[in-house]
Amino acid sequence: MSRVVDLNAERYRRRPIDVENGRIELTHGAGGRAMVDLIDGVFRAAFSNPLLDKGNDQAVFEMQSGRLVMSTDTFVVSPLFFPGGDIGSLAVHGTINDVAIAGAVPRYLSTGFVLEEGFPLSDLTRIVRSMAEAARNAGVLIITGDTKVVERGKCDGIYINTAGIGQLVPGLEISSDRARPGDKVVISGTIGEHGVAILASRNGFAGESGVRSDTAAVNGLVAQMIHAVPGIHVLRDPTRGGLGAVLNEIAHRSIVGIHLDRRAIPVRPEVAEACRLMGLDPLNCANEGKVVAVAPAAEADRLVAAMREHPLGREAAIIGEVIADRDGYVAVRSDDGHYHLVDWLVGSVLPRVC
Amino acid sequence: MSRVVDLNAERYRRRPIDVENGRIELTHGAGGRAMVDLIDGVFRAAFSNPLLDKGNDQAVFEMQSGRLVMSTDTFVVSPLFFPGGDIGSLAVHGTINDVAIAGAVPRYLSTGFVLEEGFPLSDLTRIVRSMAEAARNAGVLIITGDTKVVERGKCDGIYINTAGIGQLVPGLEISSDRARPGDKVVISGTIGEHGVAILASRNGFAGESGVRSDTAAVNGLVAQMIHAVPGIHVLRDPTRGGLGAVLNEIAHRSIVGIHLDRRAIPVRPEVAEACRLMGLDPLNCANEGKVVAVAPAAEADRLVAAMREHPLGREAAIIGEVIADRDGYVAVRSDDGHYHLVDWLVGSVLPRVC
Repeated sequence: MSRVVDLNAERYRRRPIDVENGRIELTHGAGGRAMVDLIDGVFRAAFSNPLLDKGNDQAVFEMQSGRLVMSTDTFVVSPLFFPGGDIGSLAVHGTINDVAIAGAVPRYLSTGFVLEEGFPLSDLTRIVRSMAEAARNAGVLIITGDTKVVERGKCDGIYINTAGIGQLVPGLEISSDRARPGDKVVISGTIGEHGVAILASRNGFAGESGVRSDTAAVNGLVAQMIHAVPGIHVLRDPTRGGLGAVLNEIAHRSIVGIHLDRRAIPVRPEVAEACRLMGLDPLNCANEGKVVAVAPAAEADRLVAAMREHPLGREAAIIGEVIADRDGYVAVRSDDGHYHLVDWLVGSVLPRVC
Repeated sequence: MSRVVDLNAERYRRRPIDVENGRIELTHGAGGRAMVDLIDGVFRAAFSNPLLDKGNDQAVFEMQSGRLVMSTDTFVVSPLFFPGGDIGSLAVHGTINDVAIAGAVPRYLSTGFVLEEGFPLSDLTRIVRSMAEAARNAGVLIITGDTKVVERGKCDGIYINTAGIGQLVPGLEISSDRARPGDKVVISGTIGEHGVAILASRNGFAGESGVRSDTAAVNGLVAQMIHAVPGIHVLRDPTRGGLGAVLNEIAHRSIVGIHLDRRAIPVRPEVAEACRLMGLDPLNCANEGKVVAVAPAAEADRLVAAMREHPLGREAAIIGEVIADRDGYVAVRSDDGHYHLVDWLVGSVLPRVC
């Protein structure tokens, strides 16, 4: 029997992952020992927490009864690393934000990886550590996951899905169809940074433009907003499609119009300059760490004041108001005093921005 | 103003999706009107339910307090359509099963799509309808989702992530580290069908082999098992890596050995024949609608009887027993009476089986 026992010890010997020089192989996604080595050496090493560490195909957690929020996003951003963040931090922030803007406290994330054969383990490790840091900073646990590997040329390095669960703050009624004429429109800060940073990265002038993605988890900011003004009507994060698309959707669903004041919309000079060069409007550029709120006029100043007390809301501003308009159009008043339609584009100005 | 109003009406006009001849374009994933048209025309049309139909970026649902289970899987199976199922039904069944085998009642799914530019909308619609049917049959709701589109050559048609939430049945203690010497090992039916069906499909003899995937949601079967024998020690679904990998993992985590009886393991003749031709062992071939249980010997017959009352458990059988062995090896007794090691492979015999 000694030979069998030796074989057996060999079977269970941990093969340390070579995170510096190794590359993803098809066996890393094929349900055997190589997958366990990858999970232990890369994912569990970074995400470790008591729920994940049980090592089952699913996680178990306690929840108090009430309303829960679930959201999911898959991230296919290109390039994977960009000024201000990477696909990992983005994947964590994006789903946290979708849960938070429903008025919920995000608690748990699942994550699903599609990896391309040959993808450097050093890049994977960097991305996974970035996810772990983003989750830790936001007070959220990554509790379960899945890894698939596809052949060379069947993926662009790595795609990441995250799904999130949060607990709704009781008593809130926040929904995109609750904007009412007279309400004020509030933005948490400068717009367009993520979209411009990605586009600049792709075109090779990321460094020169000086524009960094605003990717951030807004759950802390949202909690502060809800605490100050529980009667907020609408909360959204203006990601793909930018602020323009989100305001059009709010107008459409609430059956109201929205008038913006161009001078009130905060835009960093370098974003304005990059947009001018590329022929873009910051209103159509993606954000990944901003919140747009629609609130009763009487509470708007209090909301802005509360937002400015949070690091992510320092430049919060009232940028417009909701008007009666059953055709649901969104317009922006320019410096010349004229209103221009804010179009709802067929698609964003660039694909794979998140 | 009439021109503005006309423009506006045009903006909100629904563009029906051409599900027969249309193809996925980059704008379908870019956060604008085209994405809304796709979501309304394909996803919402198939998945419609009160939680999803609110049309937000997240879903809200009520849960009683207690322990919840979360699991996720991304599906990259190739080919997308195979005898017995497709990537859609597989994506729904797979996550339902991962939630169910924790001893939970699966309730809600999220879904994230990565679509390749040029993918036929007819195929997408067929896959989405298959998901809807699988969810409906299992009593589970798809409540939120996300769609991304990547350029031609950056994906293999479609990848689907699902994440699932279920409520744990109180009082259960089911875990892979609870197998004890003397326990019996039970399988819910014939093994190896999914893996062989995929491999046969790829090699172009799917029709001749007559092997169909066993893809199915096992939550109803598991509920019946738990009801009959609440003291089940271990429940697993033997997917990637097959029954051999799952039993090795149970042995490893419970620090026990497992002895199987080859003659007791149910295998369809056509699967046995296909495995013989391809030089495979059914123990290493994936299953997508089977459950393996480890239960106290005194309760094993009752468990098998309860399983046989369920359509998915008609061929349930006791296939082996747990023995004391701190080296954790799994062996199978062949017709000749000798034991052979059941190896835990470095990876499954084929990639992209799920």
